[in-house]
Amino acid sequence: MTDIHFKPIGIIRSPFDKPEGMPIQAPGAAGVRGTLELDPAYAEGLVDIAGFSHLILLYHFHRAARASLTVVPFLDKLPHGIFATRAPARPNPIGLSVVRLLSVAGCLLTIEGVDVLDGTPLIDIKPYVPAFDAHAADKIGWFATKVGATAQTRADDRFSKPQ
Amino acid sequence: MTDIHFKPIGIIRSPFDKPEGMPIQAPGAAGVRGTLELDPAYAEGLVDIAGFSHLILLYHFHRAARASLTVVPFLDKLPHGIFATRAPARPNPIGLSVVRLLSVAGCLLTIEGVDVLDGTPLIDIKPYVPAFDAHAADKIGWFATKVGATAQTRADDRFSKPQ
Repeated sequence: MTDIHFKPIGIIRSPFDKPEGMPIQAPGAAGVRGTLELDPAYAEGLVDIAGFSHLILLYHFHRAARASLTVVPFLDKLPHGIFATRAPARPNPIGLSVVRLLSVAGCLLTIEGVDVLDGTPLIDIKPYVPAFDAHAADKIGWFATKVGATAQTRADDRFSKPQ
Repeated sequence: MTDIHFKPIGIIRSPFDKPEGMPIQAPGAAGVRGTLELDPAYAEGLVDIAGFSHLILLYHFHRAARASLTVVPFLDKLPHGIFATRAPARPNPIGLSVVRLLSVAGCLLTIEGVDVLDGTPLIDIKPYVPAFDAHAADKIGWFATKVGATAQTRADDRFSKPQ
């Protein structure tokens, strides 16, 4: 299988300049505002995006440490396989967040619910469509007894490489 | 901004050997089974994944045509900015699907609800957690009058490069 090359389409701006103390996932990022600065070369791709309340962001975990196949995630004290977690130190360090879109001004999108490090390279923006993306998952594995603590849990530097 | 290099972690197998006639999105793929063939080098990363009913797959649209910033998507007759659509011909051709996990046997995962081309390179597997990933989006833009037709709509080759 051949390698895959992506080129950032923009930058995510947020109040978080280091991993330590960051919220994890949407429940921890309620009300947190940020912006997407899209490269003007892609401006035409934003046509009609203002009609959506929520966007899916895919981005590069550019500060992630070298991949580990087993990790102790922020929400637990026990190790789990990396693909059973959302930890950044993944074989392909790609992050996914769903954010609320507040406004669009040219190539600048104001967003809310941002659990992303400032300066993160943006790989893709997709419209969030509940009929495609919202699923009534009945089994959430080890998260079942831990997910309630998400909003109160903060990140540390365990998955980050030194700056 | 520097380029991002990913390496496929496995292959997605499905009944669909060409884009023409494929279902689009989860509503069109109900009951469709497939498999994930994970590269055995990453086997340890699957520990505890069997506890989840749904997985998020990120994959390379390896057959996607050169990116277009404006596209006429399968569900509409009018053009939209690529970031307001889920079309494959994106600046970074990365796809996202949420599938049901049926079983895990070593590095082979049997999945259901597959709207992915056979042979697609897999980039990442994440556990689907409704508290993180399910959002009550109140505005879905141009999809509002079109999304009901998703299950009946099939793909064609408009976003594919010749084989």
